Amino acid sequence: MGIGDDAALVRGSSPAGVLVTTDMLMDGVDFDLRTADPMLVGRKCLAVNLSDIAAMAGRPLAAFVSLALPRAHGRALAESLYRGLWPLAEEFGVAIAGGDTNSWDGPLVASVTLIGEPSAKGPVLRSGAKSGDLLLVTGALGGSIGGRHLTFTPRVREALLLHAAAELHALIDLSDGLASDVRHIAAESDVGVVIYADQLPISTDVNPVLPQSERIRYALCDGEDFELLLAVSPDDARKLQARTDLGVPLTIIGEVIDGNDCFLSDTQGNIRPLPTGGWEHALG
Amino acid sequence: MGIGDDAALVRGSSPAGVLVTTDMLMDGVDFDLRTADPMLVGRKCLAVNLSDIAAMAGRPLAAFVSLALPRAHGRALAESLYRGLWPLAEEFGVAIAGGDTNSWDGPLVASVTLIGEPSAKGPVLRSGAKSGDLLLVTGALGGSIGGRHLTFTPRVREALLLHAAAELHALIDLSDGLASDVRHIAAESDVGVVIYADQLPISTDVNPVLPQSERIRYALCDGEDFELLLAVSPDDARKLQARTDLGVPLTIIGEVIDGNDCFLSDTQGNIRPLPTGGWEHALG
Repeated sequence: MGIGDDAALVRGSSPAGVLVTTDMLMDGVDFDLRTADPMLVGRKCLAVNLSDIAAMAGRPLAAFVSLALPRAHGRALAESLYRGLWPLAEEFGVAIAGGDTNSWDGPLVASVTLIGEPSAKGPVLRSGAKSGDLLLVTGALGGSIGGRHLTFTPRVREALLLHAAAELHALIDLSDGLASDVRHIAAESDVGVVIYADQLPISTDVNPVLPQSERIRYALCDGEDFELLLAVSPDDARKLQARTDLGVPLTIIGEVIDGNDCFLSDTQGNIRPLPTGGWEHALG
Repeated sequence: MGIGDDAALVRGSSPAGVLVTTDMLMDGVDFDLRTADPMLVGRKCLAVNLSDIAAMAGRPLAAFVSLALPRAHGRALAESLYRGLWPLAEEFGVAIAGGDTNSWDGPLVASVTLIGEPSAKGPVLRSGAKSGDLLLVTGALGGSIGGRHLTFTPRVREALLLHAAAELHALIDLSDGLASDVRHIAAESDVGVVIYADQLPISTDVNPVLPQSERIRYALCDGEDFELLLAVSPDDARKLQARTDLGVPLTIIGEVIDGNDCFLSDTQGNIRPLPTGGWEHALG
């Protein structure tokens, strides 16, 4: 399986194969070292990849960390990055198994590749959503740029638990924002979706004094939530919501419909096209 | 197996595991886009990783290409890089299975991760050289910076053929230069080595009008040869040299001895410490 899902599945002679995902983060684009704690930057470099393995309901195994370090204070920066990265690796049982450390005259670039393996039930793709399914998200959405984008917990354990407990038809992690990422499920599954505006779990990081329509827009479009979005049958949705061992909220936020259109509905009966905007890499 | 060999071996539930190697190349450090053909730069980004898989006698499977592209002409640059990368991927049966393409205000950074698998005989490490073994290299050494560092053929096929035909005790690819890379075999195998100065296959890229001692130094220290260095028994060395299907020269260039010292000897009976210098990332 190549480009187009959260991670690629590479099969050699092994029938199960391995999951591979990679992310490159750059100073001034994905974080700003003038204000961000380098430990949290290091942590994020691994966390975004863990989130991609979670989005396949896989188990992470080993990470490869390549750095282009600015010549000035490069060594101290590398140490800070690793001080943030190592504890997360340990928490998720990931070996730092290699990489490539360089110094140069440019800003920091960090490229992390994470190898994982599918669970015994196999990987969950974006492409299996069916008309009539319900859409659920873990956690809360919006306002991540205020800091949560550096401190979020990748939903690896939650994905494995959900995958073991139900038949997940489609799964993705929310990196660009629900309004943008749900379209990947729609496109890959050849379905449409309706998102319930009034049901969105809006993060406390979204300013509570804003008008509700603005707050909904932030929850839909801010991005970098790194929560899971899943499509399951209504029966499975109720079964999963009844579980008490998940540790994070699981909210029904929409449904899968025939066709290819993506809508936003509210309890007043208004229905309109889902906004298209994702996160625009604005720095907080 | 973690850091310390040419590629890491990642085992999950699969007993054979996968080989993983990654290299990050930066404009102004590993190449210079003011003078280098971007097609050849793209080619090199994959070729260095293929050489690492060859150094484990593995088979390459899938590559992941992450780019930080300068904003000006970034798209045209990416196309040129891929025009060089794709044919090499096809030649070696490698799928481009994912990656991460970004643009920013900095210079080009390309980070390629290559997944491979060990052959049925397993991977060949740096750590199995034995006193009495002979050391052999494929191809010719030195002067790579004149252009060969961008156009070399990774020795994937040669490594698989050698591995199938003999018992390779240790294997590495020459990236930093023979004088530097042979020390990895010595250290990992806990042995010493003697390199035969007069037997080195010096590349035609090394200026023929230089004094012979200078030419030898270039062959030992220039680096970026991306040839294979192997340690085998004297019987296997002769057997491998007798093969006519390898397609590249295979030259005996030294021997493995007890102890931990690395020497350079010549036919006049002079013996002295092996120079330590590797390639210093000087740009041609």
